[in-house]
Amino acid sequence: MTDTIFRKILDGEIPCHEVFSDHRVLAFLDVNPLSRGHTLVIPREEAATMDQLSDEAAAALGRALPRICRAVQEVTGVKEYNILQNNGTSAHQVVMHVHVHIIPKPRAEEGLGIGWPASGIDHEDGAALAASLREAIAAG
Amino acid sequence: MTDTIFRKILDGEIPCHEVFSDHRVLAFLDVNPLSRGHTLVIPREEAATMDQLSDEAAAALGRALPRICRAVQEVTGVKEYNILQNNGTSAHQVVMHVHVHIIPKPRAEEGLGIGWPASGIDHEDGAALAASLREAIAAG
Repeated sequence: MTDTIFRKILDGEIPCHEVFSDHRVLAFLDVNPLSRGHTLVIPREEAATMDQLSDEAAAALGRALPRICRAVQEVTGVKEYNILQNNGTSAHQVVMHVHVHIIPKPRAEEGLGIGWPASGIDHEDGAALAASLREAIAAG
Repeated sequence: MTDTIFRKILDGEIPCHEVFSDHRVLAFLDVNPLSRGHTLVIPREEAATMDQLSDEAAAALGRALPRICRAVQEVTGVKEYNILQNNGTSAHQVVMHVHVHIIPKPRAEEGLGIGWPASGIDHEDGAALAASLREAIAAG
């Protein structure tokens, strides 16, 4: 067991503004929101990053999202939003327990800022890369 | 039925570098990657945004993520990554069919750029907001 702030929230040691709860998932307001209604959805299962999460916990996390997103839209009145889940310190993860951010985007200056340094794919490399990924997934 | 490029990929009208496929989900390489291994995971179900997706499709999308993330880590050698799903034009959505980005973060200049204009929560507003969200989900 790790000792993150989210584990303490799950264990009831630290209070939260609870939004949703079932036997696999807890959702609550981020105390440092990027916009009003910024909500975190976390699995009760212990895992630092998505790749370490069980299929069942990941499915439960996914299943909870549509209803929470609809509620955030309805209550905030903001229809557009980003869903973000960071894995690793360089990828902006701070708390080492899987957490999905639902971040309303009310206007350009609020909500998640996105930098998008895209380039065109090298299709030859892409074909080889995709083949390697299929093999890695099949090997499990 | 909408006529997005992802629908055409799902229908086999446009090719893709396929990474994973099951009866609910398709994953393939983004042709305009933010970093090598940038993968898109989409539901076969037709929905523009997460709030419009069925619980079952959202669960299947979540369930597929851990295995795909592990494969991306293994094949690219990059351990850190962001998972992003944009809803609405202002929130950086371009194709109006739900898609989850898995974006390796090999170094600061590559991968997803993140702007984080956070502020502290107003706890009084937070308590009222969370109560409204709980009610909206219960009524949902």
